[in-house]
Amino acid sequence: MTKIIEVKERIIQDNNAVANQTREVLKEKNIFFVNLMASPGAGKTTLLTKVLPILKEKYRIGVIEADVDSDVDAKTMESLGIKALQVHTAGLCHMDADMTKRSLDALGLEDIDVIVLENIGNLVCPAEFDTGAHLNMMILSVPEGDDKPLKYPLMFQNSQFVVVNKIDVKEVFDFNDAKFENNVRLQNENCPIYYVSSKTGEGIEKVGQYIMKCIEEYRSHENN
Amino acid sequence: MTKIIEVKERIIQDNNAVANQTREVLKEKNIFFVNLMASPGAGKTTLLTKVLPILKEKYRIGVIEADVDSDVDAKTMESLGIKALQVHTAGLCHMDADMTKRSLDALGLEDIDVIVLENIGNLVCPAEFDTGAHLNMMILSVPEGDDKPLKYPLMFQNSQFVVVNKIDVKEVFDFNDAKFENNVRLQNENCPIYYVSSKTGEGIEKVGQYIMKCIEEYRSHENN
Repeated sequence: MTKIIEVKERIIQDNNAVANQTREVLKEKNIFFVNLMASPGAGKTTLLTKVLPILKEKYRIGVIEADVDSDVDAKTMESLGIKALQVHTAGLCHMDADMTKRSLDALGLEDIDVIVLENIGNLVCPAEFDTGAHLNMMILSVPEGDDKPLKYPLMFQNSQFVVVNKIDVKEVFDFNDAKFENNVRLQNENCPIYYVSSKTGEGIEKVGQYIMKCIEEYRSHENN
Repeated sequence: MTKIIEVKERIIQDNNAVANQTREVLKEKNIFFVNLMASPGAGKTTLLTKVLPILKEKYRIGVIEADVDSDVDAKTMESLGIKALQVHTAGLCHMDADMTKRSLDALGLEDIDVIVLENIGNLVCPAEFDTGAHLNMMILSVPEGDDKPLKYPLMFQNSQFVVVNKIDVKEVFDFNDAKFENNVRLQNENCPIYYVSSKTGEGIEKVGQYIMKCIEEYRSHENN
């Protein structure tokens, strides 16, 4: 009989254990944790520069920037008065729970209500690994195409919030909302899908409001 | 000042330590270890079914099949009389040194001279992780295009042997050998580049001979 070993199960189990520990720690401190995923160039950092000022009016924010080798993204956050940590990943394909835990420790959890992890630019590998976040959020940018849920099913399955960015170029790229939503629903029946343009600002306020709703639900639940 | 942490360094250091341990263990047992990498569908398994019978005349072979969720590839190897282990990776993006070590333990190192790891089908992530192999070998299939060294530089940098497969369809896909070699040389000055068709058999014997040369060099070195 062919000998088979299951390596994924063990790795995912180990990862989940650390992710659950992280959620325990965050629960004690009443901190909400958002994991933001997208392809390179989908507009993660730019969207954050628009959305975080909305959240900042109500919460103390910390950002972990894990998608590049420079400190440009962390500096951008700091210029907005937001506490930031730059994680140099140098080509690694995802943040796992252990890397995330170390990053949270390095950022420091004092005086923070909401943490946003800008994950490594990749629609495949980050979807495999629970980071310990409460909200997995992904951005799909219009130029990537409305068929992407078919190509990256796990990413769409594991996201609880999908934001379509760069809708200002929707006509140039022949992006069909109905087709996209249909493709998303094949993977994920429930996640809200919001449409924004970080460039024109369209839809940004609603994204901020939705994240705030998630934060409030978490906090009211925590206080029960 | 922006706070920065380097997660890759630590991960790669940990991984390299395990990979070096693996090489120590293999050295004691005089076992040569080949790590075979390629995109999905480039023809890893089919090439192995052609090349391993050549190596098998001289060496006792063990194969670790890590690229799929079935046990088809391991069964294919066993039908050739080759000891095989199927590793279920279920979508994980690469084999790291620890996963490889556990796979080698599960395969068993007795009565083996040469181990081949058929790595997960992916030109990005596997290139980041030293598995403990002595020879990193990659396949690029003609339909993938002669520009791929530009898109996957690390894979070409970290391979010591590049095989171009499916040369029987070279004209259909307008694959230019000179252009390809030029693109490879931008990443890697020395690696040999061999051209084969697993379908027609062209070039297969030479690939087998080259791997045998690498094995003999390793073994003569080991015995010094």
